[in-house]
Amino acid sequence: MTSKRILITGAAGRLGTILRQSLAGRFELLRLSDIVPMTATAEGEQIAPCDLADAAAVRDLCEGMDAVIHLGGIPYETGWSEMLRTNIAGTVNLYEGARHAGVDRVIFASSNHATGMYPNDRTLTGGSPPRPDSRYGLTKAFGEDVAALYAYKHGIRSLCLRIGSCLPKPDNRRALSTWLSHKDFVRLVEVGLTADYVHEIVYGVSRNTRSWWDNSAAYRLGYEPLDNAEVYAAEVESIELKAELARLYQGGNFVPEEFTSRREWLG
Amino acid sequence: MTSKRILITGAAGRLGTILRQSLAGRFELLRLSDIVPMTATAEGEQIAPCDLADAAAVRDLCEGMDAVIHLGGIPYETGWSEMLRTNIAGTVNLYEGARHAGVDRVIFASSNHATGMYPNDRTLTGGSPPRPDSRYGLTKAFGEDVAALYAYKHGIRSLCLRIGSCLPKPDNRRALSTWLSHKDFVRLVEVGLTADYVHEIVYGVSRNTRSWWDNSAAYRLGYEPLDNAEVYAAEVESIELKAELARLYQGGNFVPEEFTSRREWLG
Amino acid sequence: MTSKRILITGAAGRLGTILRQSLAGRFELLRLSDIVPMTATAEGEQIAPCDLADAAAVRDLCEGMDAVIHLGGIPYETGWSEMLRTNIAGTVNLYEGARHAGVDRVIFASSNHATGMYPNDRTLTGGSPPRPDSRYGLTKAFGEDVAALYAYKHGIRSLCLRIGSCLPKPDNRRALSTWLSHKDFVRLVEVGLTADYVHEIVYGVSRNTRSWWDNSAAYRLGYEPLDNAEVYAAEVESIELKAELARLYQGGNFVPEEFTSRREWLG
Amino acid sequence: MTSKRILITGAAGRLGTILRQSLAGRFELLRLSDIVPMTATAEGEQIAPCDLADAAAVRDLCEGMDAVIHLGGIPYETGWSEMLRTNIAGTVNLYEGARHAGVDRVIFASSNHATGMYPNDRTLTGGSPPRPDSRYGLTKAFGEDVAALYAYKHGIRSLCLRIGSCLPKPDNRRALSTWLSHKDFVRLVEVGLTADYVHEIVYGVSRNTRSWWDNSAAYRLGYEPLDNAEVYAAEVESIELKAELARLYQGGNFVPEEFTSRREWLG
Amino acid sequence: MTSKRILITGAAGRLGTILRQSLAGRFELLRLSDIVPMTATAEGEQIAPCDLADAAAVRDLCEGMDAVIHLGGIPYETGWSEMLRTNIAGTVNLYEGARHAGVDRVIFASSNHATGMYPNDRTLTGGSPPRPDSRYGLTKAFGEDVAALYAYKHGIRSLCLRIGSCLPKPDNRRALSTWLSHKDFVRLVEVGLTADYVHEIVYGVSRNTRSWWDNSAAYRLGYEPLDNAEVYAAEVESIELKAELARLYQGGNFVPEEFTSRREWLG
Amino acid sequence: MTSKRILITGAAGRLGTILRQSLAGRFELLRLSDIVPMTATAEGEQIAPCDLADAAAVRDLCEGMDAVIHLGGIPYETGWSEMLRTNIAGTVNLYEGARHAGVDRVIFASSNHATGMYPNDRTLTGGSPPRPDSRYGLTKAFGEDVAALYAYKHGIRSLCLRIGSCLPKPDNRRALSTWLSHKDFVRLVEVGLTADYVHEIVYGVSRNTRSWWDNSAAYRLGYEPLDNAEVYAAEVESIELKAELARLYQGGNFVPEEFTSRREWLG
Repeated sequence: MTSKRILITGAAGRLGTILRQSLAGRFELLRLSDIVPMTATAEGEQIAPCDLADAAAVRDLCEGMDAVIHLGGIPYETGWSEMLRTNIAGTVNLYEGARHAGVDRVIFASSNHATGMYPNDRTLTGGSPPRPDSRYGLTKAFGEDVAALYAYKHGIRSLCLRIGSCLPKPDNRRALSTWLSHKDFVRLVEVGLTADYVHEIVYGVSRNTRSWWDNSAAYRLGYEPLDNAEVYAAEVESIELKAELARLYQGGNFVPEEFTSRREWLG
Repeated sequence: MTSKRILITGAAGRLGTILRQSLAGRFELLRLSDIVPMTATAEGEQIAPCDLADAAAVRDLCEGMDAVIHLGGIPYETGWSEMLRTNIAGTVNLYEGARHAGVDRVIFASSNHATGMYPNDRTLTGGSPPRPDSRYGLTKAFGEDVAALYAYKHGIRSLCLRIGSCLPKPDNRRALSTWLSHKDFVRLVEVGLTADYVHEIVYGVSRNTRSWWDNSAAYRLGYEPLDNAEVYAAEVESIELKAELARLYQGGNFVPEEFTSRREWLG
Repeated sequence: MTSKRILITGAAGRLGTILRQSLAGRFELLRLSDIVPMTATAEGEQIAPCDLADAAAVRDLCEGMDAVIHLGGIPYETGWSEMLRTNIAGTVNLYEGARHAGVDRVIFASSNHATGMYPNDRTLTGGSPPRPDSRYGLTKAFGEDVAALYAYKHGIRSLCLRIGSCLPKPDNRRALSTWLSHKDFVRLVEVGLTADYVHEIVYGVSRNTRSWWDNSAAYRLGYEPLDNAEVYAAEVESIELKAELARLYQGGNFVPEEFTSRREWLG
Repeated sequence: MTSKRILITGAAGRLGTILRQSLAGRFELLRLSDIVPMTATAEGEQIAPCDLADAAAVRDLCEGMDAVIHLGGIPYETGWSEMLRTNIAGTVNLYEGARHAGVDRVIFASSNHATGMYPNDRTLTGGSPPRPDSRYGLTKAFGEDVAALYAYKHGIRSLCLRIGSCLPKPDNRRALSTWLSHKDFVRLVEVGLTADYVHEIVYGVSRNTRSWWDNSAAYRLGYEPLDNAEVYAAEVESIELKAELARLYQGGNFVPEEFTSRREWLG
Repeated sequence: MTSKRILITGAAGRLGTILRQSLAGRFELLRLSDIVPMTATAEGEQIAPCDLADAAAVRDLCEGMDAVIHLGGIPYETGWSEMLRTNIAGTVNLYEGARHAGVDRVIFASSNHATGMYPNDRTLTGGSPPRPDSRYGLTKAFGEDVAALYAYKHGIRSLCLRIGSCLPKPDNRRALSTWLSHKDFVRLVEVGLTADYVHEIVYGVSRNTRSWWDNSAAYRLGYEPLDNAEVYAAEVESIELKAELARLYQGGNFVPEEFTSRREWLG
Repeated sequence: MTSKRILITGAAGRLGTILRQSLAGRFELLRLSDIVPMTATAEGEQIAPCDLADAAAVRDLCEGMDAVIHLGGIPYETGWSEMLRTNIAGTVNLYEGARHAGVDRVIFASSNHATGMYPNDRTLTGGSPPRPDSRYGLTKAFGEDVAALYAYKHGIRSLCLRIGSCLPKPDNRRALSTWLSHKDFVRLVEVGLTADYVHEIVYGVSRNTRSWWDNSAAYRLGYEPLDNAEVYAAEVESIELKAELARLYQGGNFVPEEFTSRREWLG
């Protein structure tokens, strides 16, 4: 099924803005929803303000849509009451609306913070059970479970993206592992709009050499990231590296002595 | 750490009643909480009525406890608003209360319905990602994620029991796989009160021959179920069996012809 | 080695007739043998009546052949004496004849009934040991062993086809797993006539979504089935499906409530 | 179930004689059958001459038995007609008789020659598909398939012993791998008379260090061989060993030079 | 074979002194050799000064010994000429001497620096190929290869100990992984003197929770370390830990916020 | 980086001569070094006599080189003193020289004799730990360790070739496993000159059907051997084969009887 009419929630946010620009003019209808005011600027765009906590409004919002890209919700750590209202109830409302509207698929912006309490030396897949690092991360784990319910029981294709660090470029060492370039984010959403799946959880991450995440499930769906945070690695790494040598290798203090290896082989 | 002061939520319910009887007199304090009225009947019992949706009340409820057995919440499928209030917010309140009280561990009554949309021929472990079969099951999956947050981030040991069918005896074929005897339920809770773990999800199931669930994680913690639904299998199976033969074996209609095998080897 | 002169035993049977039509005119010689009368109808066909229980006649029958497609024998369940005479001794006679004639390869029509006592939830390969469901199935298992003897000891390439349900189209649920389309049967025999192998046991089955059999060994030899019983699944499945839901999923009675998933995802 | 009344076919043969001596006086009834004349010599023994090719006679022979140890048949390579009559039809007759008599279990003397065309460097299990090395080996493979039919379809426990080299002591290098001591043979049969199984194929081999066969299935049933051909290894090996060194190690001619390793570590 | 007469090379060094004290009076003869002067102080001790680079002297040194504990050599990084003379040629001399003397076994003090260029996040076994971090580490890798030559070709049992940090107690974070307590060192040497092996490379490390090394090979030989650097972990870790949290977990800056987990679960 | 200036040590030897002919005229500079006299015969060749035991001379020898193909050293079993001087110290000198000259990569001619004490039935990879069969093999294992030190610590790419039997054609059965054709040797060296690696140990062997070595690491680097010793197998095998049959198969003496299998399937 080709998605022609697409709803983006949270369309005024950072991720929403990236998508809006990339998807403009490519679909019959791009319905842009947010709780903050927006203006339509491209052909096919339709502005539809909505509070996700309002179940009836969300049901209307979904009407006539083929696909939903659900970016809406609070994207930072905050108190329980807001989390329960916007991220928990809001996501339930969104999926209920999608079910009533006969929406074919929902792309859900989960987050790497759903698994943030894993140590760095663990390679995760979308099948790795949640270890949220925050209330925020917990609501994302919940959204993945909602997605599973509606996929397996109600037949709504659900792609959950555990988005890493969606930034212009990686600006610290952690982001060398977690970076999702703007272009790769768009690529991944495009996959979500066209691929054949039931319920999948994948990581929203570029093809980073240092990625902590085995994203082969995304690759099987057709995701082909082109960016790699490693391009920025020298920039990020240069100064801290030498001092850290003894800590990285098992040989400890024997290592740095006369050490002359190639910069790019360290670590 | 030995748990001496124990809180049971949902203590007036079916599972709570089983536990209350078995644990009576074995701890310094057994605080029994429910939203319905109860009366203390054994030494060491303390009745503490509470609505789990009331965060402040739950915080008081947890005060001074070493361990919590969290059975409270709605145990059947119902509408979203009740689910969000009692099972979602209620479980958050419980864990927040436990954190403030310095509780060592929480045993959370999750449910097999958190994974109910898996087909029967899949062997699941506690690590199998949720596929809820209902709003109810979704709230249980959520509770497991809450448990992960509080375990890994806040140091509360969390044991999640995906309870099967806790019944006097299995009364249909499905229960031959999912049965949890009353005694094994108590055994499993005892393990939860004494074993060493961080965050574990296990199935609440007896040592059923036909179990769909690989419960080795529970066994590693020390769980030693003694009951097996199979004891009741003949009773459950007898009549339906013969007719189903051709469907069970690959040989189809060739199978029943002259078939004389032992009853107990079928399937 | 290219097979140019080919013997088909059991050529008047159902499978033999399919092959005869498909192979007509494609080889230097197609020797068609059966115990029932036949008439040559295409160029290159040669009719050679023969009783497989007659060792000397079978030896003559094999003379000058490059390959044998051994379909002959009783294809249904019957008494021991006939089985021993036609299927057991007959197959020994065939292979002895092939050895004396220096035949390069024998394609042996084994049957899925050689493994019919496996339950449906077991995925079998050609390496799965026999569990015959009948005297008939036992004679097929025996034929596979004869093939192994002549392959490994006497250098006759042997391809054993555990044929499923070779029908115009699947007409019951079991056949959704076991169906072998007429065209795929021919494809598989063509592979047997040209591929490089010593002794292989594969399943004669189309590329059915619900196949019980991992036929990768056949795929490695070059078999590329094009038909899939699934095309007929809706037809076969439609009515029985809904009622069976609770039995298929672990969630039991929680599953069908409000269940609205896509038809094609069930099971 | 405890076997009290036991039939041994082929009781006058080499293996039968070993068993007869060891089992004498230990069961309520030991019915000893062979086509050659025998005399009862111990209490509880009963002589029952029988030609296995005579189906009716075999049916009588099985009457009243709890268990059958089926050693009967031709134990060497010979022509097809004898093989079909005695080993093929004879074994079918035996199992049919057992079924009619309600025999609980049959221990079938298969042979390592059912898998004789495997190279030595392959470690086999009872699940390794037959590669007979002879007509004799083929009949043993057939017997295993008969056993599967009667076990899975008719509920007769079947233990197939792929007997190695049952000799007083190993007398050549091959037997260092294949030796089955008389005592271990008896032990294995005892396991067969008491253990709980449906259909198992195991190797009849002692705990030889050089065994080609992973007999863990037998061990799981309780078989605990006490003999090891290795005890006789030095005797067998001594002279040939030194000359063979270069062939055993990858280093070739570099190996024997100055070679001084311990005798017992070679190979 | 029980070792009664034991040679320790490098007996005056740090490791040698530990062993000498622990082994005193437990063997018929303890021959203590070093290039520096020593004095016998216990019964059964014999002082035998020797330069390992002197092949003839080393041959005499080995005379009459059952076992050799080869600790001799330069234990720090230095220039090539000394390394080649003492550690390379010296070790060859030692093994040649052992061979001529018919020594049963040699325990060789290898070093973790033979694998020092592996990053910390790699779990190594004795089978992990060398990645020396220094000339010193290279000579230890060489010694392991010498040991293999003499074990497999000449029948001298060889146990190579890749010794970690043999210290009174761990004094930095690296040593939490690499610590070998004095007592565990002695235990490991005792295993080397009594166990049954051909050629084994194991790590000389206590049962440290944070060990980088899978020492199961040593455990299979019977090594049962009783010390664990973790006992000293709090001491070592305390201050640096909190600041490092964000770096250890995938959640980055989301992790430390409100983080209250148990000290001992970190990392 | 493209290697333009290449040093070959041991250039007058058997392997050196093969390389010299194949590489002539393909690089800016081919510096040919040996301890025996040579004459330049092709454009771009430069003769540079050198004793590898002379560290200063070797340092000069490496000056200005991009890559070194280190074939120099004693290629047969001989006494310790020569081994230590030429193969041990010589290889250290070579790598030290390479480090000072900033050489990008070294291809080191190791040998299959570094692992010669493995039995033939073990499939080895470059990661298989050394089991030298000789002093010669030990020096090759040492060279691999030197290569690891300089690769991981000093950034010199190191490819170690455990060369099999580099001969015009295989002339005995062992060489059917170990043969390295002249052309494949050149191909492998070409891979070493161009591929991207840090430290690799691969086998120098053609694509022999009977190879004992899993050379997939070499294939990953791009090595595509075209020769297969099997082409010469019939020649080598013919006579010995028949007599050896009983020894190869588990069936022993049952095998050769009437054995008529295809020549090429044996073994």
